[in-house]
Amino acid sequence: MNDKIYRADLSKMKAWIEDVPESWNSLGGRGLTSAVVASEVEPLCHPLGKNNKLVFAPGLLSGTTAANTGRLSAGGKSPLTKGIKESNSGGTSAQLFARAGIKALIIEGLPENKNEFYGIRIKKDSIEIEKTSLWGKGNFETIETLSKGNEKCGVISIGAAGEMKMAAANISVKDPQGKIRSLGRGGLGAVMGSKNVKYVVIEPTENDQVYVENPEKFKEAAKSFAKALLEHPVSGEGLPTYGTNILTNVLHEAGGLPTKNFSTGNFDGHDKISGETMHDLIEERGGKVKHGCHPGCVIQCSQVYNDKNGNYLTSGFEYETIWATGANCKISDLDSLAYADHLMDDIGIDTIETGAAVAVAMDAGVLEFGDSKGFVNLLEQEIKNGTPLGRIVGAGAEVTGKVFGVTRVPVVKGQALPAYDPRAVKGMGITYATSPMGADHTAGYCVTSNILSVGGYVDPLKKDGQIELSRNLQIATASLDTAGLCIFTAFAILDNEKAMEAIVDMLNAKSGSSITGDDVMSLGASVLKMEREFNKKAGFNEKDDRLPEFFSLEKCPPHNVIWDFTDEEIDSFWNF
Amino acid sequence: MNDKIYRADLSKMKAWIEDVPESWNSLGGRGLTSAVVASEVEPLCHPLGKNNKLVFAPGLLSGTTAANTGRLSAGGKSPLTKGIKESNSGGTSAQLFARAGIKALIIEGLPENKNEFYGIRIKKDSIEIEKTSLWGKGNFETIETLSKGNEKCGVISIGAAGEMKMAAANISVKDPQGKIRSLGRGGLGAVMGSKNVKYVVIEPTENDQVYVENPEKFKEAAKSFAKALLEHPVSGEGLPTYGTNILTNVLHEAGGLPTKNFSTGNFDGHDKISGETMHDLIEERGGKVKHGCHPGCVIQCSQVYNDKNGNYLTSGFEYETIWATGANCKISDLDSLAYADHLMDDIGIDTIETGAAVAVAMDAGVLEFGDSKGFVNLLEQEIKNGTPLGRIVGAGAEVTGKVFGVTRVPVVKGQALPAYDPRAVKGMGITYATSPMGADHTAGYCVTSNILSVGGYVDPLKKDGQIELSRNLQIATASLDTAGLCIFTAFAILDNEKAMEAIVDMLNAKSGSSITGDDVMSLGASVLKMEREFNKKAGFNEKDDRLPEFFSLEKCPPHNVIWDFTDEEIDSFWNF
Repeated sequence: MNDKIYRADLSKMKAWIEDVPESWNSLGGRGLTSAVVASEVEPLCHPLGKNNKLVFAPGLLSGTTAANTGRLSAGGKSPLTKGIKESNSGGTSAQLFARAGIKALIIEGLPENKNEFYGIRIKKDSIEIEKTSLWGKGNFETIETLSKGNEKCGVISIGAAGEMKMAAANISVKDPQGKIRSLGRGGLGAVMGSKNVKYVVIEPTENDQVYVENPEKFKEAAKSFAKALLEHPVSGEGLPTYGTNILTNVLHEAGGLPTKNFSTGNFDGHDKISGETMHDLIEERGGKVKHGCHPGCVIQCSQVYNDKNGNYLTSGFEYETIWATGANCKISDLDSLAYADHLMDDIGIDTIETGAAVAVAMDAGVLEFGDSKGFVNLLEQEIKNGTPLGRIVGAGAEVTGKVFGVTRVPVVKGQALPAYDPRAVKGMGITYATSPMGADHTAGYCVTSNILSVGGYVDPLKKDGQIELSRNLQIATASLDTAGLCIFTAFAILDNEKAMEAIVDMLNAKSGSSITGDDVMSLGASVLKMEREFNKKAGFNEKDDRLPEFFSLEKCPPHNVIWDFTDEEIDSFWNF
Repeated sequence: MNDKIYRADLSKMKAWIEDVPESWNSLGGRGLTSAVVASEVEPLCHPLGKNNKLVFAPGLLSGTTAANTGRLSAGGKSPLTKGIKESNSGGTSAQLFARAGIKALIIEGLPENKNEFYGIRIKKDSIEIEKTSLWGKGNFETIETLSKGNEKCGVISIGAAGEMKMAAANISVKDPQGKIRSLGRGGLGAVMGSKNVKYVVIEPTENDQVYVENPEKFKEAAKSFAKALLEHPVSGEGLPTYGTNILTNVLHEAGGLPTKNFSTGNFDGHDKISGETMHDLIEERGGKVKHGCHPGCVIQCSQVYNDKNGNYLTSGFEYETIWATGANCKISDLDSLAYADHLMDDIGIDTIETGAAVAVAMDAGVLEFGDSKGFVNLLEQEIKNGTPLGRIVGAGAEVTGKVFGVTRVPVVKGQALPAYDPRAVKGMGITYATSPMGADHTAGYCVTSNILSVGGYVDPLKKDGQIELSRNLQIATASLDTAGLCIFTAFAILDNEKAMEAIVDMLNAKSGSSITGDDVMSLGASVLKMEREFNKKAGFNEKDDRLPEFFSLEKCPPHNVIWDFTDEEIDSFWNF
């Protein structure tokens, strides 16, 4: 059985199914979305115009029985960075896509009627554009409405931010509990909004499954892979117990927790928002410490966080979110942050970009650092309603900095830096600088060796070894993102060679190929280079691989370190 | 006698006078500001940070008795384009600078105390940083206050926009009547504001004059030059009678008057805002049809425009302003436009960028096209008070487009296009695309040959000859801007070889040199290339020399033309 490309053209108001071109056959996830963007999107097009496309693709292993392979990639030209963008998340849609034989969904064109809104409905062997009255509804209501009588359907949707084409708008993916996971970074929600597409819904067909050429071999490899994940202290113990928020205290201790809009690396309120505190609160309030974002996840880093009265407040309450809205804005009220997270899910806006933008606005005096009510008000009243202030913040940190005349604006290629200060966690700085995605922690997560001593140790305060570390991780990550693997499988991969062997075995068993570990890395390298090539055609050059000036001018306490890589050092990243 | 560099460092709170480096000796105006920026400003610095500098320089001929040589150049890294910026204007300061022997004033550093504000006071052989309480005052009040008891002093100042570091903020220069001329484009007012400098005041010394090596030869050449200006139909008749606004009807007729945010080339309200209508209104209301922006101007394209009751409303009421706020926003109420012009003078914001940004906001539905009250309210209530909406518009058209998710955003290198549609006046399109300044009509004013048949005729609707035309004009303009000559001297220069001869003779007579016309052109070419080199170091490449996508997708009525230059054609501009 051959997978197909599903395509919806909003200019023509037609949708159809077509064969997969030969050159895309061996690709999935990020490798495929980037290949589609590179071959079909004019690099200098307006991201919100008719020549941009929005691509969804499950990973190569998505939909199989292998653990942690349920990632869905979305790609397009980013309204935030103006470069190529891939963003991936969990949720149930990747598995449903893969099982229905959908290699990728490509949404293109712009509808003629600006006042009519659409959904895309996918079943096995069928795709339709339908009118919808859900435009204007929040993500939660949208998902609930679409799931009525069809609980197991997959939903991909946008909220108010995407509808208003805000550059920080994300795309929501329904998770197994009907809650939300996010294709967070780079504003692809605005691309979806520009096409007046509110949602994609995919109806599952009973008994569908992904074709596996050699099921026995696959089963064996999958078992070995799951074992490796469960045996690693980070993916087997740390993440399941404390979630990603285990990092708040860790980064605070390391002096690399960006605080008060990247003006220091320590947050005195760290204890109030830490993973440890959160864990106890969750247990106390009858929430769930463990929670998976898609069936088949053995790490379960998500959670269900309830309020004081034991009522559901949020899930997928990540370290990055808690950092962006917490330490970076000097807010130490965890319940406020959880409520903010819930609001951002409903509005459909990236928590990292939003937190970074609010911190920049705080630096300009628009509201006070630490003002949790002001933050919530900004989300509920300003962003959700598209007021001028809401739209400024919704346009991201760079625009917020320009509008308010701020010089401390932590962005690369127009995208805000996540939760690791590049002066004190220098490997992350190299990833932020060089990733074709703009500043993105998931692109090459050097926190592994810099902070967690996974895959060896590279001193985070020194330059030595960081370029190589980031390069290896970015290449490996591009491979994982193509396979549809969760980034948290990387801990096991870095420390246990059996994990990588298992991945290669699964890929071969699935498709009957005989690739090696080197081939998998070559694939990652080629994806990275393809993405960089697109960016070059879109106008980027090596000057875009630089951190903002203030990181070189302002010392980051407590280590009082600056960003001190030379241009030549940074550019050597691309020597592969 | 040797001119000196005057320098004020706000970080050190010191100001001093220093010798002119050998390599800057033969430069003035734009050539000098660009040379200072190229040699002293880190190309990747934040435009509002401590590493940017603000440079003022009179032209090489400024302060002499020669006609129309009173242009003052300002330079720095632009907060709007992030590239090099030179903006020049009339007013009295260039002549006062030159006569006091000031080759350039360089303002650098950032004050430690963010809540203290400064002025820079210059006398012959003296420069001081002084505290001021004028921060928060409008430009008119600032100029009036500083001129009390010192009517002939020169004043350079910023208004609310510059204080708030808006990227569209301009710098005002006092004219002979105490009114305002503007260093308009590229947001240099925000650079001045970032340094907490409200004004520069220069007190004239009696009997100072510019040293001229060969006064007799100079006098003769100056006479020949003035004659050429007065004999040309545009500078001798059209501009003095109707001002620059003579162009409204001309461009409407040519189908190149950008209307409704560049959606068509005709404006049905053209007649209500035309130069002819304005001329009659001015006479009827007892204003002045002719008015010079600096002593020694023989063209007198400015005017004094009174309201219905004969009270002063504005002067320096330019075609570009009337287009930006009029046709581009579909507003045909000339009195409203005049009041808006007055407000923008007082606030200190670029009329072109503001009009373009408002039109983009209108395209997004923020206010209606044609809403003159809404426009005035936006200036008086929003921009002046720095509300979020005011700051969005004050950040320029590109940011406004990003914030409101608009695809029709007429900018190049982040700077809004002026009053000539590039699809219907293709030579201007080449200038917009290639100028290191971002879209700027004054950089290479192809309207000459495209529309006015000055310097020959090049069909505005065809591609043939436009590259060469723009190249020749951009090179020549860089020379004129270096000499301190008004751009409107170009009409005579293009049609009458005696004008160029006279300029060369004046330059030689002044300094005792023996340069040729070719040397003058070589100088212009080298200035252009120096500016481009800075931009390259700041991250620009050939992809930045492109018009926005919509000009290639949307036809411009009535000729229904698109922008159709290939990348190769545009890039061939730089073959010199």
